[in-house]
Amino acid sequence: MNIDMPLSELKTYKGSSPRPSDFDAYWERALAEAEELSLEYELVPADILTPMAECYHLYFTGAGGAKIHCKFVKPKAGKASGAGLVQFHGYSVDSGDWSEKINFAAHGLTVLSLDCRGQGGLSEDNLAVKGTTLRGHIIRGLDDPDPDKFYYRNVFLDTVQAARILMSLDEVDPDRISVFGISQGGALAVACAALEPRIKQAIAVYPFLSDYKRAWEMDINNSAYAEIAEYFRNFDPHHDREEEIFTKLGYIDIQNLAERIQTKVLWVTGMIDAVCPPSTQFAAYNKIGSEKELLLYHEFGHEFLPHLSDRALKMLLEI
Amino acid sequence: MNIDMPLSELKTYKGSSPRPSDFDAYWERALAEAEELSLEYELVPADILTPMAECYHLYFTGAGGAKIHCKFVKPKAGKASGAGLVQFHGYSVDSGDWSEKINFAAHGLTVLSLDCRGQGGLSEDNLAVKGTTLRGHIIRGLDDPDPDKFYYRNVFLDTVQAARILMSLDEVDPDRISVFGISQGGALAVACAALEPRIKQAIAVYPFLSDYKRAWEMDINNSAYAEIAEYFRNFDPHHDREEEIFTKLGYIDIQNLAERIQTKVLWVTGMIDAVCPPSTQFAAYNKIGSEKELLLYHEFGHEFLPHLSDRALKMLLEI
Amino acid sequence: MNIDMPLSELKTYKGSSPRPSDFDAYWERALAEAEELSLEYELVPADILTPMAECYHLYFTGAGGAKIHCKFVKPKAGKASGAGLVQFHGYSVDSGDWSEKINFAAHGLTVLSLDCRGQGGLSEDNLAVKGTTLRGHIIRGLDDPDPDKFYYRNVFLDTVQAARILMSLDEVDPDRISVFGISQGGALAVACAALEPRIKQAIAVYPFLSDYKRAWEMDINNSAYAEIAEYFRNFDPHHDREEEIFTKLGYIDIQNLAERIQTKVLWVTGMIDAVCPPSTQFAAYNKIGSEKELLLYHEFGHEFLPHLSDRALKMLLEI
Amino acid sequence: MNIDMPLSELKTYKGSSPRPSDFDAYWERALAEAEELSLEYELVPADILTPMAECYHLYFTGAGGAKIHCKFVKPKAGKASGAGLVQFHGYSVDSGDWSEKINFAAHGLTVLSLDCRGQGGLSEDNLAVKGTTLRGHIIRGLDDPDPDKFYYRNVFLDTVQAARILMSLDEVDPDRISVFGISQGGALAVACAALEPRIKQAIAVYPFLSDYKRAWEMDINNSAYAEIAEYFRNFDPHHDREEEIFTKLGYIDIQNLAERIQTKVLWVTGMIDAVCPPSTQFAAYNKIGSEKELLLYHEFGHEFLPHLSDRALKMLLEI
Amino acid sequence: MNIDMPLSELKTYKGSSPRPSDFDAYWERALAEAEELSLEYELVPADILTPMAECYHLYFTGAGGAKIHCKFVKPKAGKASGAGLVQFHGYSVDSGDWSEKINFAAHGLTVLSLDCRGQGGLSEDNLAVKGTTLRGHIIRGLDDPDPDKFYYRNVFLDTVQAARILMSLDEVDPDRISVFGISQGGALAVACAALEPRIKQAIAVYPFLSDYKRAWEMDINNSAYAEIAEYFRNFDPHHDREEEIFTKLGYIDIQNLAERIQTKVLWVTGMIDAVCPPSTQFAAYNKIGSEKELLLYHEFGHEFLPHLSDRALKMLLEI
Amino acid sequence: MNIDMPLSELKTYKGSSPRPSDFDAYWERALAEAEELSLEYELVPADILTPMAECYHLYFTGAGGAKIHCKFVKPKAGKASGAGLVQFHGYSVDSGDWSEKINFAAHGLTVLSLDCRGQGGLSEDNLAVKGTTLRGHIIRGLDDPDPDKFYYRNVFLDTVQAARILMSLDEVDPDRISVFGISQGGALAVACAALEPRIKQAIAVYPFLSDYKRAWEMDINNSAYAEIAEYFRNFDPHHDREEEIFTKLGYIDIQNLAERIQTKVLWVTGMIDAVCPPSTQFAAYNKIGSEKELLLYHEFGHEFLPHLSDRALKMLLEI
Repeated sequence: MNIDMPLSELKTYKGSSPRPSDFDAYWERALAEAEELSLEYELVPADILTPMAECYHLYFTGAGGAKIHCKFVKPKAGKASGAGLVQFHGYSVDSGDWSEKINFAAHGLTVLSLDCRGQGGLSEDNLAVKGTTLRGHIIRGLDDPDPDKFYYRNVFLDTVQAARILMSLDEVDPDRISVFGISQGGALAVACAALEPRIKQAIAVYPFLSDYKRAWEMDINNSAYAEIAEYFRNFDPHHDREEEIFTKLGYIDIQNLAERIQTKVLWVTGMIDAVCPPSTQFAAYNKIGSEKELLLYHEFGHEFLPHLSDRALKMLLEI
Repeated sequence: MNIDMPLSELKTYKGSSPRPSDFDAYWERALAEAEELSLEYELVPADILTPMAECYHLYFTGAGGAKIHCKFVKPKAGKASGAGLVQFHGYSVDSGDWSEKINFAAHGLTVLSLDCRGQGGLSEDNLAVKGTTLRGHIIRGLDDPDPDKFYYRNVFLDTVQAARILMSLDEVDPDRISVFGISQGGALAVACAALEPRIKQAIAVYPFLSDYKRAWEMDINNSAYAEIAEYFRNFDPHHDREEEIFTKLGYIDIQNLAERIQTKVLWVTGMIDAVCPPSTQFAAYNKIGSEKELLLYHEFGHEFLPHLSDRALKMLLEI
Repeated sequence: MNIDMPLSELKTYKGSSPRPSDFDAYWERALAEAEELSLEYELVPADILTPMAECYHLYFTGAGGAKIHCKFVKPKAGKASGAGLVQFHGYSVDSGDWSEKINFAAHGLTVLSLDCRGQGGLSEDNLAVKGTTLRGHIIRGLDDPDPDKFYYRNVFLDTVQAARILMSLDEVDPDRISVFGISQGGALAVACAALEPRIKQAIAVYPFLSDYKRAWEMDINNSAYAEIAEYFRNFDPHHDREEEIFTKLGYIDIQNLAERIQTKVLWVTGMIDAVCPPSTQFAAYNKIGSEKELLLYHEFGHEFLPHLSDRALKMLLEI
Repeated sequence: MNIDMPLSELKTYKGSSPRPSDFDAYWERALAEAEELSLEYELVPADILTPMAECYHLYFTGAGGAKIHCKFVKPKAGKASGAGLVQFHGYSVDSGDWSEKINFAAHGLTVLSLDCRGQGGLSEDNLAVKGTTLRGHIIRGLDDPDPDKFYYRNVFLDTVQAARILMSLDEVDPDRISVFGISQGGALAVACAALEPRIKQAIAVYPFLSDYKRAWEMDINNSAYAEIAEYFRNFDPHHDREEEIFTKLGYIDIQNLAERIQTKVLWVTGMIDAVCPPSTQFAAYNKIGSEKELLLYHEFGHEFLPHLSDRALKMLLEI
Repeated sequence: MNIDMPLSELKTYKGSSPRPSDFDAYWERALAEAEELSLEYELVPADILTPMAECYHLYFTGAGGAKIHCKFVKPKAGKASGAGLVQFHGYSVDSGDWSEKINFAAHGLTVLSLDCRGQGGLSEDNLAVKGTTLRGHIIRGLDDPDPDKFYYRNVFLDTVQAARILMSLDEVDPDRISVFGISQGGALAVACAALEPRIKQAIAVYPFLSDYKRAWEMDINNSAYAEIAEYFRNFDPHHDREEEIFTKLGYIDIQNLAERIQTKVLWVTGMIDAVCPPSTQFAAYNKIGSEKELLLYHEFGHEFLPHLSDRALKMLLEI
Repeated sequence: MNIDMPLSELKTYKGSSPRPSDFDAYWERALAEAEELSLEYELVPADILTPMAECYHLYFTGAGGAKIHCKFVKPKAGKASGAGLVQFHGYSVDSGDWSEKINFAAHGLTVLSLDCRGQGGLSEDNLAVKGTTLRGHIIRGLDDPDPDKFYYRNVFLDTVQAARILMSLDEVDPDRISVFGISQGGALAVACAALEPRIKQAIAVYPFLSDYKRAWEMDINNSAYAEIAEYFRNFDPHHDREEEIFTKLGYIDIQNLAERIQTKVLWVTGMIDAVCPPSTQFAAYNKIGSEKELLLYHEFGHEFLPHLSDRALKMLLEI
């Protein structure tokens, strides 16, 4: 199973993509902006599927004024355990079925599941940027002189705002919040845990959005990483600005955020993942300084992983 | 989206594979054998994941003496609603994670999830047959002069026996049992509902094991249907026995069992399913005479279907 | 060579995608808006490659206030023949090299080559729409209640505005304008000729953006047509709104615009084009009522076509 | 298994490619030329592998003066049965191993196995033609004004000359000659049997070189049939000469020669043959008027066929 | 041609898969069991194809009581040279056509060609094992606590028993026996030569069943090696038992048997063999201590090899 | 982007294929033959597309007496600048459209564009060689004992002769000649510049025909390099003559000619070129001793390159 480096090399790999020199300042500025965002929200009842939980559409106003949508599922009155979960979804789809969240709520968790702006769900992407609007979202904002215009910068802030809204609820103990996501959702779990230190634990399953240069070198063309090569084809075919471009992407590279994490992390990697290759993941995982566990699926790629929902449920209940 | 017939033709397609003339006698004989099987079982407690349900490994002795394993999850004492669910898994894997079943149990359902013999789970396949033991299980027994030696004949009986064990439990109302399965599991849901008329409702998601001749004609080579062509290559390349072979396979073809169904059925089909093509599914669906609903996913193949778990949960709770 | 209908069927095929009942009103409204747009522009000299022509970047303000960029190449003073050319590029790239335009200018043509908003060139896409911002541009605006928000509605207006700017120049005879484009550019040549009746002739090479329902039925997944299926996957998997969605797309479907064309058209089709399949092209071609010629390349797909630049040059000089 | 028409249509399919009006005159002229060719040959002993047969390289001078090579294997003195075999090989390779021929010789057959000019063996292709020398041999000569310059015209004559040399040997009974070949070799067996009526029986296994227009329509690009499309791409992309070109290819199309066959034929077809599709084969088979048998391998393509060598040996010994 | 290590590395590669510490004891125990097996057999005359040999179906009772079938072809009375051949077939098919064996018999060899249990021929696989019965045969028995339950352990013993039956015949000189096989058959030739030291020479063509860990590392998914990864997916995704599993497979790994070989070996490898990659073969070849020759086909994969049947015939006759 | 060695290795890579010891003598002999060839030519007027240039078919008699065709485009009387261009085309096609050449002529260049013998254009390949005539042209002549019989040897001489005819024209300054080609054309530009030292500058875009052994090692099977492996399959499968064969190919390997270049070279490489891989190109580029520039397109393969025609036009006009 050799689609990437051998496991022994992966374990010490520190990433290929550069870190901007003002990376911390960039995110301190962003977090300062997030401090100003309102934690108010609107609730719209969803069709009731179950006697075990209450289901709502929750809307808040995110960075830049975008209307952001979450699925919000909470235990019936008196049944909340105080624990909370913020959940993030994979690229291009939405926050998913209610039934999985209801299961968590049946166990006492209060659950908020974020729709990413302008993807497959109900959140709106109101961002007008200079430059191409083609394809996906990684390079959205790359051409803008203002690095604060990156699409993912705002999505990362949305994760923080969602976590804080959850923390603000009466029935929730802000010190017992988990974040959980798969693929893009795994990256958002990492970003949220890095930017909101009160997060207690994170489950990141084969996270996306890491070590862009490595993804480019591996010529990943079956995921949104392919946008990077397409950007170069159109705007810098001779790579006169290669260093500049990868450095700028470093602002929204989770391997740089990983260093900030202070919470417990369960990281899950499929060793034949050709969408988010192992090395891009290890680049981030290896930089986490807090308590962490790596769970490898040797013969699995970017696909459904057996036993994972049991493992996650166990971890979410033990908080 | 045109991997198969147009939808208008599918809606009246009645299947290509022949029905053995003694089909009913075959299954009456099998059911008579099933009547003799014991409904006793052994329980082994599983690791407790949750305060919401009790989790066990359940073992029973299936047709031919094989030791069959199920996951068994029941609501905490006093919380059972009386409703029950028998769940079946896709080809080659196993009965899956506990957490999904726990969700059902949290809602009051008593759940039994069957491991198919000799696939990816813990059930044992003790069947010794004449002829090749290569590849999968469709043609297992085809060479045996005794048509009762088909692998799937016994698996179908396992579904009946599992349903009856569930029905026999104190906390379960035998008139409130659902069956639910995906792919091979969808086929088993159909078979179980056809062979045990007390089943109240069935959810069959892109079922496998239907209209073998059509699958062969479409040259499906990415699923176990490919065994059929391989069998012909090795044992009847000139198709001297084509009629005989497809007729014999008719004993374990769910389109022939579909006629026996008297319960409510939700049938789910992905219109670009290249593993279990729509026509093979419609061959069976069109033969169901009882209350039925078809839910089409037009741009989906043999893959994860959004909104389906919500839909299924709703149906399972409304029983 | 049978990737689509036989040629005999193609020749009478009239398209599958519906035409909105208020299609003409939609475009009259748009053209009224276009009338209000300024024909002013800014010129920025480009690096001089040649003594045969003058090369500029031309910027104008398009519909919705977007800053639109063209390459503008004109013959040396006194060398202009009065003929003009508006050129459109293929999807995702830009207006291309100067040298081809210089060749036209060396022959007396005044050339304006449009960069489409937010693709690979310098034009900006300032459109904020409701709904997903993922992938390409066909479905951009589909979720917006206002059908005037379609991305391509504005691009089509850009083609009209560019043509009118060219017509407004002293050295250009507004009755001797050609439009020319390949793939997306072919679609824009059709749209421009349909919306600005003073266009004298059009060369449309395997045009894109035609008969969306047919493209969806053929499951085209190697071009931007694939966005349509992806939209359905995310937002209407059961096709409850199929008719509505395809009807709405009909506003920006060139087969509906083709009926308006009153000019001479050379249409070029590769018979094994799997990106813009022949039937989608014939749906539009067959609706043109004016003088037209079809040039088939039987063994060619969506690729470089030999002899085409000679043929086009000849036609552009004969105007 | 549906890569081509259904079997019921195949059985009456008469071919798509046209027959030149002077087809018979063309071949009468060729045969007249063949009459003038010498039946003299040169023998060079090969390494002796076996006590059961004598092995030689046999060289003769073919049409146009080319030096043609055969493997020649004959029974030990006094062991010849009088029966003979002319064997032809598949495209691009050579006359194959000695051991198979030795087996025939051990059974009394005298065997001559032809190397086709300029392919993988030792025969020389001395033909200088007008037009492209690229790729394979079907279109070699197509551009030459003289239709007698086709490469395969000369190869077909080589088969006749080889058969006649074999017939001329003392130990061979000219009325007991079989021809046998696979793929290109199958086509040559058909051609030889059609052009030399003394051939007693022919075994043609999935023959090549038949119904060129059908092969072109099916877009066969994994065999030498692909040359035809490539020729059109380079020399007639708009198909101005389509009828002329396919008609000219008709001189070397075995479906036209098939009508001349007066001998017993065993024809073998793999029903999923994507190299020489069933319809191209049936076009020829259906035109044979003499005794014939069709042996179908339903799940086989252009590949090794089990039981075939037994079947062929039986037929070769029964002559 | 670089699908594997460079040739220079291959020449010293010693394999990746571990050798069980009790490997020799395992096979001594098996051979002791083989000593107890009867050399009696039943003959059923086959259809007579030829005057040169006698053809029979030969049945014997193999390890575990399975009924094993061979094709048996012997020279006509008085024509036997005393030399014998045991032949083994490739995975999933059967012992093949009679005609090739008749050729050997025509040269004086007495030939026995084994059908592997439960594959494409007539031998029966009566083995009931614990664990999955899915897919192929490598992992069949892996889950059984008794390592003597491996499917291939019994097949290897069948090769020994077949060789001994051949040696026991009057017309055969037990010191003049060759073994010959291709792919799985090549592996069986190695196993037979290793386990029955009276074998005089072995021809092993791109043997299968060697160095399972290497095959797994190379992610071979177009052969039965793929079962290993599938087993891990289902039963040990985190590789908690990786060492144990590969060690257990070591019992039936021919690289471990290769050390026991004391006879002359011709080993044939295609350098672009993606089914049985060169390194897996060299792992075994490099461990042979007796006289050996390596014949490389540089541009060939797992396919028909020209000149090989001549080479084999020569070697078989020189014994 | 890693289809070949890393860029740092490429920059020092010196090639794998051997250089014949008498390489210089081989080409001195060829050039001596070229000296004897006539510079006379025949002109046939082409259809006039343009008032800016005169267009002719030019025919000359090349090495071995072949009739060679060029497109010849010259500025109108009095408009020639004295500069000239010899242009070469890619493999299998022809000298291309007139319009691009007309653009050059409009700028004062006199242009000669060569059709390679026996490919897609009008030049004839009259070469009769010993050995196979299958597939392409690299190995054409390899079997001939006379190394002067290589197809490409004569094509290289055609480039010299074409350049000399251009130099001989009144309106052309023989010291202001450029050569320009893409793929095979790039190789011919290199060859021509190496063999005719009066060439002033060369533009070689991803050249073909370089470092054959490396191409073979990389198993390039989507270009004419694949002929080499096919040759080995048929004629030297065990590589007994590997060194001899690659050495003989060295006569027509442009990396060996590159050392002779004394002119200015612009070399263009796509870093993901899987048809003419970067390493084969660097093998030649690194041996050029004169002024040179390397222009890399990092995300591009063997395809259309944006900005290249502008770059080339600029260079051609600056001469």
